Amino acid sequence: MKLRVKLVGLEVGGKLIIIMNNEDADDLGIRSGARVRIQYGKKFITSIINVTKKLVSKGHIGVCEEVKTRLNLKGNEEVDVDVAKFPTSLQFIKNKLNGRKLSYEEVSEIVKDTVEGNLNESEIAAFVAALYTKGVDIDEAASLTCAMVESGETLKLNKKIIVDKHSIGGTVGDKTTMLVVPIIAASGLTMPKTSSRAITSAAGTADKAEVLMPVELDIQEMKKVVEKTNGCIVWGGALNLAPADDIFIQVEYPLSIDPLMFPSIMGKKRAVGANHLVIDIPTGRGTKVKTIGDADLLAKDFIELGQKIGIKTQCAITYGEQPMGYAVGPALEAREMLEVIMRKRNVVDVIDKACHIANIILKMVGKEQNALQVLKSGKAEEKLREIIAHQGGNAAVKPDDIKIGDYGLDICAEKSGYVLWMNNTGLIDVARAAGAPKDKGAGLMLHKKLGHKVEKGDRLFTVYAEKARKLERVRKITDENGVVGVGDRVEMLIHEVTQVPVHKKSFILER
Amino acid sequence: MKLRVKLVGLEVGGKLIIIMNNEDADDLGIRSGARVRIQYGKKFITSIINVTKKLVSKGHIGVCEEVKTRLNLKGNEEVDVDVAKFPTSLQFIKNKLNGRKLSYEEVSEIVKDTVEGNLNESEIAAFVAALYTKGVDIDEAASLTCAMVESGETLKLNKKIIVDKHSIGGTVGDKTTMLVVPIIAASGLTMPKTSSRAITSAAGTADKAEVLMPVELDIQEMKKVVEKTNGCIVWGGALNLAPADDIFIQVEYPLSIDPLMFPSIMGKKRAVGANHLVIDIPTGRGTKVKTIGDADLLAKDFIELGQKIGIKTQCAITYGEQPMGYAVGPALEAREMLEVIMRKRNVVDVIDKACHIANIILKMVGKEQNALQVLKSGKAEEKLREIIAHQGGNAAVKPDDIKIGDYGLDICAEKSGYVLWMNNTGLIDVARAAGAPKDKGAGLMLHKKLGHKVEKGDRLFTVYAEKARKLERVRKITDENGVVGVGDRVEMLIHEVTQVPVHKKSFILER
Repeated sequence: MKLRVKLVGLEVGGKLIIIMNNEDADDLGIRSGARVRIQYGKKFITSIINVTKKLVSKGHIGVCEEVKTRLNLKGNEEVDVDVAKFPTSLQFIKNKLNGRKLSYEEVSEIVKDTVEGNLNESEIAAFVAALYTKGVDIDEAASLTCAMVESGETLKLNKKIIVDKHSIGGTVGDKTTMLVVPIIAASGLTMPKTSSRAITSAAGTADKAEVLMPVELDIQEMKKVVEKTNGCIVWGGALNLAPADDIFIQVEYPLSIDPLMFPSIMGKKRAVGANHLVIDIPTGRGTKVKTIGDADLLAKDFIELGQKIGIKTQCAITYGEQPMGYAVGPALEAREMLEVIMRKRNVVDVIDKACHIANIILKMVGKEQNALQVLKSGKAEEKLREIIAHQGGNAAVKPDDIKIGDYGLDICAEKSGYVLWMNNTGLIDVARAAGAPKDKGAGLMLHKKLGHKVEKGDRLFTVYAEKARKLERVRKITDENGVVGVGDRVEMLIHEVTQVPVHKKSFILER
Repeated sequence: MKLRVKLVGLEVGGKLIIIMNNEDADDLGIRSGARVRIQYGKKFITSIINVTKKLVSKGHIGVCEEVKTRLNLKGNEEVDVDVAKFPTSLQFIKNKLNGRKLSYEEVSEIVKDTVEGNLNESEIAAFVAALYTKGVDIDEAASLTCAMVESGETLKLNKKIIVDKHSIGGTVGDKTTMLVVPIIAASGLTMPKTSSRAITSAAGTADKAEVLMPVELDIQEMKKVVEKTNGCIVWGGALNLAPADDIFIQVEYPLSIDPLMFPSIMGKKRAVGANHLVIDIPTGRGTKVKTIGDADLLAKDFIELGQKIGIKTQCAITYGEQPMGYAVGPALEAREMLEVIMRKRNVVDVIDKACHIANIILKMVGKEQNALQVLKSGKAEEKLREIIAHQGGNAAVKPDDIKIGDYGLDICAEKSGYVLWMNNTGLIDVARAAGAPKDKGAGLMLHKKLGHKVEKGDRLFTVYAEKARKLERVRKITDENGVVGVGDRVEMLIHEVTQVPVHKKSFILER
C-alpha cells in the first residue's frame, strides 16, 4: 500500500511509531499495535501502528520524529507500507515463557529486535516477565550481557588492565565512587567510570559529580579524559552503552522486578572494557539485600558471571542500614566528599568504605599502594581536581563554593534516648520531597547517627530545599512517618497484622 | 502543575494517553510511560504520558481523543497535572509473578485498573505473562470471569432458562452456530448468541451472519430481537460485554498464548445471562487441541468452571481435521448454510455437527424435540428468517442473492490418488489471501474432501476473490505450500530435522 508521509512532530522515546487512518488499517487488515514494514527508497524499517480516525486522513501516514530520522524523510514522500511478518524473536520469547533455556543466538535476536523497534512494549514486557518467572541461568545471563554490549557503543582503550567498581545501590548518601576513582587513578590504574542518575534514590553518582563538573560526555570525550587522567566520572546514560537496558528498565521499574540486573551491570562494565571489577553489595534492613546470606549468594552469581565473560570480579558486602556520612542530596554529598578528600573532615564511615573498596581493587591487580595513604597524601585530591579540569569543571572548587538550598527545616527528637534505627526509604522520601535529585541543593544533613545519645528537642537532621514550598511536603512526611527512631530500647512488637496486608516493598533500582 | 490543554486529534484505541513537553516532565521528575493524574473541575483521570520536545510546548499538555471525551475538554482549558501514585493492582501483579494465588478482590482491582487505563501496556502484558507462566487455577478463573463481567455491560432477560453454545475455534468453515440458533429458538428456548469476527481465521460467525443481516446491534437492540424471536446472532464486539478482554487479547495474540481463554469465554456467556452452555472443542491435527486426551482435560476445566459460576456446562469434542462442508469465507459459508437450512442441499458433516450440538442443549434442559426434525420440518428456516427480519436483514433472502467474488482460480491435483490430508492453516491462508474476511465474497469452495478419489488434473478447490490481483498471492501460496495432499498413501517421513528448528506454531485465536 502506498501512503503519503505526514510529519506529526511527536517523539516517542526512541520507539518507531506511525499513525494510520482507520480505513487504511482496515484495508491491510490490522489494528493498533500491529507491525508494519515501511519502505522508502532502499531504506526500510519495522514500525508499530496507531490507528486514528482524525489526525491522519486516508492515504496518508503520520510518522513520529524517530521514523522521520531513520528513513530520512522530509514530509509528503510516498512510502510503501505492508504488514510485517511477526519477528522470529517472538517465538523465542514464547519459548522462555514455556520455561525453555535461551541460546545466545536467540537472546541476541530478542535484544536486537528490542533496540530496533521490532518488538512492541507488550512483547518486551512479556519477555522481562518470562525472565523473572522462569529465572535467568548463568549461560543466559552471559548471553544477555554480550548481546546488550553488541547492541550499543563500546569504549576502546589501549590498556591491558582496566578496573571498575559498581554498587548495586541501596546505601543512602553513598559517596564511595567519587573517592575511589581518584584514589585508583592516582595509583596509576585506569578506571573509566560511568555512573547513573537517581531513579529511585535521592542522588545518583552522576547527579553528585555534576555539582563539580559536566558529566554528559560522549564516548569520544570520555576517552580523551581517561587517556589524560586515567579516570573519569561520567553519566552512563549519555553514552548509549546498552540501549536495550534503557528499554527493559521501563518494564522492570513499575513492577519492581529486575531479572536483568546482572546483564545490565556487567554489560556496561564490559562495554567500557573493564577486566577487573569490584561489586559493592550494601546489605541490611532498608537496602536491596536484607541478609548476609542473600548477599553471599548474589556475590557468587556476580563472580561466576564475571568468569564467564572475562571480567575478574570480587565483591564487597557492606553495611547499609544507615546513610554513609552525614550528607544526603547531590550538592550536600559532593561537598562532604570534597571535605573528606581535602582532609578537612574525618568522616569515618565514608573513608572506611571507600578505602576498603579501593584496596580490594589495588590488591586484585597486584598494586602495593594503600588507599588510605593515597588519600592522606593529597594525591587523590590532586587527581580529582585533574579529572574535574578535563571534564570541564572548576578544578579549584572549594567546599564553600557549592551552593546548598537556602531554605532549611530542622527535625528534632520528640523524646530523649538513643538513635535506634533510621528508615532509609523515609530519608530518601524526605530528600526527594525537598527537591532532590533535580534541585541539586536539596537534601538533608544528619546531626545524629545510629547509637548516638539524644536529648528531647535535639536536632536529628536538617532538611535543605531550593524552594520553600517543598518543605511543607517534607513536614507532612516527617509528621506521618517516623524517619529516625529514638528511644531507650527497641519495642518488641514490630507491627500487628489484623487483616490481609498489601505488601508494599520499596524498590531501589540502581544499576 | 497547571498545564494548558492542546487537542492533538489522536485516537489510541481506548487508551488514555497525554503528551507532555520534556521540560514539564523533568519538572515532575517523570518520563515516558509514567502515570499522571489529570484533574479538570471535579473530574479526574489517570493517564500515561508520552514525552515530546516539539509537538507540545512547555506549559501545555497534548491530549488524545479518549482523554478529551473523558474529561469533556474543548481545548485551551487549564488542567491540574500531578504524578499519580502506583496503583495497588501493580503489587497484585507482582504477587502473581511470584506465584501467589490471586484473590477475587485482587483480580477485580487488576481488571478495573486495566479497563480504566491505570495500568500501562507493559504492566498488563506482565500480568498476562504471569498468568501464563504461573497458571490460572479454577478459583482465579472464576474470579477473572466475574471481574470481567462486572467491568462491562450485561444483558438482562426475564427468562428462567437461557442457553448458549460456544466453539473454541479451529474448524475451518464452521457454520454450526448459524444452524443451532434457529433450531434452538424454534424449539422454544432462548439463545442470545453473541459471536466474534475473525481474528486469525477466514471468517468469524459474525462475519458470516453479516452477509444476511446487520450484526452490530447494541445491547438494547439485541434484547428486543431476543424478546421477539427467542434468538439472535450478533457481533459481541459492539456490546462492550468484557472490555478488559479486548485489552488482554492484544497481548495474547502476538505471543500466541491465551491464559485468559476460560474467563474470556465464560465471562461473555455470563454477561448475556446464560445458565446452560455447550462448548464445542474441535480436535485433531490443524486445530487448537491436537489430541482427544487434551480435549477431555479442557472439557473438564470448562465444566468445573461452569459449576463454580453457576452455568451448567457440557462439552462436545468434535472432529476438526478438515473444513466443515465445502465452503470457506463469509459469503460462501452463509450461502452453504442457507442451502442446508432450506433443505436444498444435504451437506452431511454440517448437518451432523449442528444437530448433535443442538440435541445436547435440548437434552440438558429436558426438551423432547429432535434437532434434525426441527431442521427438516422447515421450522428452523422459518426461525432464521424471523431473526434476519428483526435484525434488519432481508427475510426473503435466497442463496443466489448472496454475492460471491467475480474472480476465480481453480487449484487442481498434480497427480492421481486419494485426498490424504488437508492443511487447515493453509486453507485459511488461501482464503485470507483472497480477501476474506474483509471482502465478504472472497474464500474457497472445496470440490473434494478427505478420502475422495482424485484424478490428475481434477479440481481440488476453487478460490474466489473480489479483486483479481488478490489471486496472485493465492497462486504463490498454493505453489509454495501443499494445502491439500493427494497420493496413494501417506509418506512415512513427516520431516527431517537437520538443525535446531524454530518452532512456528500457527495460533487460532477465537473466543
